Amino acid sequence: MKKILLVGAGGTLGSAVATHLRQQHDVITASRSDPAHPVDLGSDDSVTALLQSVGKVDAIVATTGAVHFGPLGEMTAAQFDIGLQDKLLGQVRLALLGQHHLNEGGSITLTTGILTEQPIAQGANATAVNAAIEGFVRAAALELPRGLRINAVSPSVLLEAWDSYAGFFPGFEAVTAARAALAYQRSIDGIANGQVFKVW
Amino acid sequence: MKKILLVGAGGTLGSAVATHLRQQHDVITASRSDPAHPVDLGSDDSVTALLQSVGKVDAIVATTGAVHFGPLGEMTAAQFDIGLQDKLLGQVRLALLGQHHLNEGGSITLTTGILTEQPIAQGANATAVNAAIEGFVRAAALELPRGLRINAVSPSVLLEAWDSYAGFFPGFEAVTAARAALAYQRSIDGIANGQVFKVW
Ligand SMILES: NC(=O)c1ccc[n+]([C@@H]2O[C@H](COP(=O)([O-])OP(=O)(O)OC[C@H]3O[C@@H](n4cnc5c(N)ncnc54)[C@H](OP(=O)(O)O)[C@@H]3O)[C@@H](O)[C@H]2O)c1
Ligand SMILES: NC(=O)c1ccc[n+]([C@@H]2O[C@H](COP(=O)([O-])OP(=O)(O)OC[C@H]3O[C@@H](n4cnc5c(N)ncnc54)[C@H](OP(=O)(O)O)[C@@H]3O)[C@@H](O)[C@H]2O)c1
Repeated sequence: MKKILLVGAGGTLGSAVATHLRQQHDVITASRSDPAHPVDLGSDDSVTALLQSVGKVDAIVATTGAVHFGPLGEMTAAQFDIGLQDKLLGQVRLALLGQHHLNEGGSITLTTGILTEQPIAQGANATAVNAAIEGFVRAAALELPRGLRINAVSPSVLLEAWDSYAGFFPGFEAVTAARAALAYQRSIDGIANGQVFKVW
Repeated sequence: MKKILLVGAGGTLGSAVATHLRQQHDVITASRSDPAHPVDLGSDDSVTALLQSVGKVDAIVATTGAVHFGPLGEMTAAQFDIGLQDKLLGQVRLALLGQHHLNEGGSITLTTGILTEQPIAQGANATAVNAAIEGFVRAAALELPRGLRINAVSPSVLLEAWDSYAGFFPGFEAVTAARAALAYQRSIDGIANGQVFKVW
């Protein structure tokens, strides 16, 4: 039984991850609106306060992050920066601060998505942001001390989100959030390091 | 003979790119300290002013961008954001604004680096930033209209910069900036789109 901090546990993906991980582990949930563990990944102070209140953990998971969707021909740098600050830097901040709150052999698992490799119209920000997270994971894995590990999970569009996103993903196969949740367990309970688990 | 806007032309890499491209093309140089065409890729207004003063071009090239180098265990989110704002968003801003100032069939060429695929100690920011630029190129290539193209050039460490960087790149093979410059010509004068030209 591991002690796991899951940021984004109330979301479409995160709620399935919480349900799955709770079968074997002690899962502490957090997000901006979480009553017990409120946190904003946009703020160093907020993340530091969360980590201090929770104490040492065996795994840190993020299932958070917004990106900008819109036509390339109209995209502004400010819109592109939304994904950089929210999905990318938010998760990186959690990893950078969280590494010091992990027990030996502990793991960090971040969330990317299929758009890294399979771009869609209006998705240039998402592809860039996901690729950056996967790059961060690849590099950070080689520098982490004490047997710490870091991986990313890259789901296809979720069946639970299909009604909102179908128009963006013509012909894509949706996956259930429960299937994506398995990959988080693989990252946490396996030995992989620097990997991207593709769920598609 | 094409009309090419080269931002970063005074740098280690950019000066070799300028020399090579000038053999066949009309090269307009720009950078923060360029006397004729000063521009700061950190500012929409500055880039817009540059593009308006230069008029329509056949190719836009960026050989710019700083990232943060430092140990993962000490890295802050603010330090990580340096690479996001400078190397990543700076080049993306030039591409987003520049797409509307390209003649039909024109191209954009951005600069990444070997660290995307081959991480080094203290290089997590560089790997993430380079991966994001390559992701942006992959996605943007599919959305550009009017036969426009976009590619990235990914050089290994440059021989001309070896004295400063050798300690970071143990056992890496340095390449000359002149060799890297060939890849910019390939992007501009070839038909490739969404590609990363690896120079290593
Ligand atoms: N949905 C899909 O089809 C799909 C497919 C592939 C990948 N993904 C990726 O999976 C991740 C989650 O997607 P989702 O659809 O599950 O999103 P979601 O339903 O909107 O859930 C996001 C979760 O993150 C929390 N959160 C958001 N911003 C936060 C912040 N700044 N600080 C702390 N917590 C924050 C939210 O709670 P609060 O509002 O309380 O903060 C919520 O619990 C995203 O990275 C997304 O790109 C999603
Ligand atoms: N050097 C290497 O070994 C190597 C290897 C692989 C990849 N790269 C990549 O190649 C690129 C250039 O590297 P370099 O070594 O040639 O750098 P450099 O010698 O420092 O040159 C950078 C150039 O970009 C300009 N510049 C910097 N910031 C700018 C801004 N905000 N707006 C407009 N222009 C700006 C600089 O001129 P001003 O100061 O006048 O603005 C200068 O002309 C970087 O992305 C780097 O990561 C370098």
